[in-house]
Amino acid sequence: MPNEFELIARYFAPLARGFPGAYGLLDDVALIAPASGNELAVKTDVIVAGIDFPPDEPAHLVARKALRVNLSDLAAKGAAPRTYLLDLVLPNTVDEAWIADFASGLAHDQAEYGIHLIGGDMSSTSGPITIAVTAIGEAPIGRIVRRGGARPGDTVFITGTIGDAALGLSVLRAELPSLDAASAAFLVDRHRLPQPRVPLGPQLIGIATAALDVSDGLVADLRHICTVSRLSAVIEASAVPLSAAARVAIDNDPQRLATALTGGDDYEVLFTAPPAAAARIGVLSRLFDTPIAPIGCMMALSDEAQPDVVVRDNMGRPLSFKSEGWTHFLDRSDPQ
Amino acid sequence: MPNEFELIARYFAPLARGFPGAYGLLDDVALIAPASGNELAVKTDVIVAGIDFPPDEPAHLVARKALRVNLSDLAAKGAAPRTYLLDLVLPNTVDEAWIADFASGLAHDQAEYGIHLIGGDMSSTSGPITIAVTAIGEAPIGRIVRRGGARPGDTVFITGTIGDAALGLSVLRAELPSLDAASAAFLVDRHRLPQPRVPLGPQLIGIATAALDVSDGLVADLRHICTVSRLSAVIEASAVPLSAAARVAIDNDPQRLATALTGGDDYEVLFTAPPAAAARIGVLSRLFDTPIAPIGCMMALSDEAQPDVVVRDNMGRPLSFKSEGWTHFLDRSDPQ
Repeated sequence: MPNEFELIARYFAPLARGFPGAYGLLDDVALIAPASGNELAVKTDVIVAGIDFPPDEPAHLVARKALRVNLSDLAAKGAAPRTYLLDLVLPNTVDEAWIADFASGLAHDQAEYGIHLIGGDMSSTSGPITIAVTAIGEAPIGRIVRRGGARPGDTVFITGTIGDAALGLSVLRAELPSLDAASAAFLVDRHRLPQPRVPLGPQLIGIATAALDVSDGLVADLRHICTVSRLSAVIEASAVPLSAAARVAIDNDPQRLATALTGGDDYEVLFTAPPAAAARIGVLSRLFDTPIAPIGCMMALSDEAQPDVVVRDNMGRPLSFKSEGWTHFLDRSDPQ
Repeated sequence: MPNEFELIARYFAPLARGFPGAYGLLDDVALIAPASGNELAVKTDVIVAGIDFPPDEPAHLVARKALRVNLSDLAAKGAAPRTYLLDLVLPNTVDEAWIADFASGLAHDQAEYGIHLIGGDMSSTSGPITIAVTAIGEAPIGRIVRRGGARPGDTVFITGTIGDAALGLSVLRAELPSLDAASAAFLVDRHRLPQPRVPLGPQLIGIATAALDVSDGLVADLRHICTVSRLSAVIEASAVPLSAAARVAIDNDPQRLATALTGGDDYEVLFTAPPAAAARIGVLSRLFDTPIAPIGCMMALSDEAQPDVVVRDNMGRPLSFKSEGWTHFLDRSDPQ
């Protein structure tokens, strides 16, 4: 195994080419400034083998997931991604081939999203592979889409389909043995590699009143918007867009609807907008070849009521869920 | 143990107060823009229990070290720190009291350096505590002090004293049993809590031709400047400033001079400047109550020679060292 400096020179410095402020990773800091009229949006996420991805996941997929979960946050707020920093903590079971494959995944997504690595750090560990990414994007000053701007009467929209990633994780855990192979493979792919809505996101500025990406789960993330916006929300379960594969899984086992609605890792954009924006949203949907579906609406809180999310079934009855979404430290104490 | 959201609300959201772009950690991204005429300087570092700090280190010291190693890089380049992001990866042996103590360490240093937490992430792990910090500072556009600007004839300067942290680690490893208790305690303190040269750093803009902070070790870090500046350097071992405690340790065991000169974690500023700058540097030294010592000089490379660092003893003889400094992945394959 080459030493840290050799690894950086061989695999990571090439990823900094094309961004002058990265200084080829040969200096101690990187420099970045927003374009005139813009400000920088920053986001960090950390993923851990055995918690956030399977320990035997191919390195290039791990790299792309580590990057994409951050790009998804930037996109959901309307920021265009520019650069990222990477902290890579590796056990001594990781060999140079793993690092080469990891770097190739980063290179792939850098080309896809037009971004550059500008800094990082490496350390060794007695524990699992741990990867922290800090992504930096930019957006017009004062225009990013916050969590707190939803208004009573706004429609709730979601991009893409919901539940695939959570159902994909169920496939990996062998919890969906009767699912056909093609559906299973589709869901696992959706779990492994998020598709952040990078080109679409910035177009939602001026349209969306509140937005975030679905990472904790649709219901939990809509609750985040409700809490900060001081509103409640009602969504229609039948309006939540499902992929064909998710529909097969749920038809096989109707309990899996809860998995879809509350599971995490969708990395779709959940946003609110006035009903009058529907036509403009329809145009964006076609322009970016991205389904965008209305799934419910925001409502004023009655006196002293707490922000809440209600999911209704076909008959208008509220559904209830055992768990609303993923949190690291709740799950830990969960006996399951 | 409270869940992730409760922990953030209780311990980390208060650390974001006072920085509007952090949105109280209640949104998905944070916003930051440099002041007019400035650009942002970013740096990330990751530290791992059992590798970068002892597993039983008090949490507030771990927090402050995680923060300070990054502030040190910003300072050495001439950037003033403004904000940071934090990724905190915790095994289930960590309790709420640890997190409270950790946050109190961050609060202490935020007050000391005038900075704010603006974002972060938490995850659980089956491995050791792992902490990644990304610090963001700012500096006048195009003025940060690079590694590559040293010129032949420049004097090499160092702030503070060198070797204390590495000798402090030797104390913790019981390798200096004959050292008096007061000296041992001083060295251990220096190992535990770096003192980044935050107020001094930005004053070196326009004076220093090249700079970095000493983290890998004096000789290895000076070699970094040599490599990028395409120069060699000679330093006089007797000119390298040592604390009284380090001097006692080295007097007891002269081999420890190598530990001092090549050990890491000093977090002092190593910089080059023309000899004519000595008077201005003397003023800064008094103004910031920070010793700054000339320890050698930079020299042109002769044809085809490689950048090199020579350390000379009192008699002008070159000293040689078994290892020039710390790297994570060399040490791993080292049978010691």
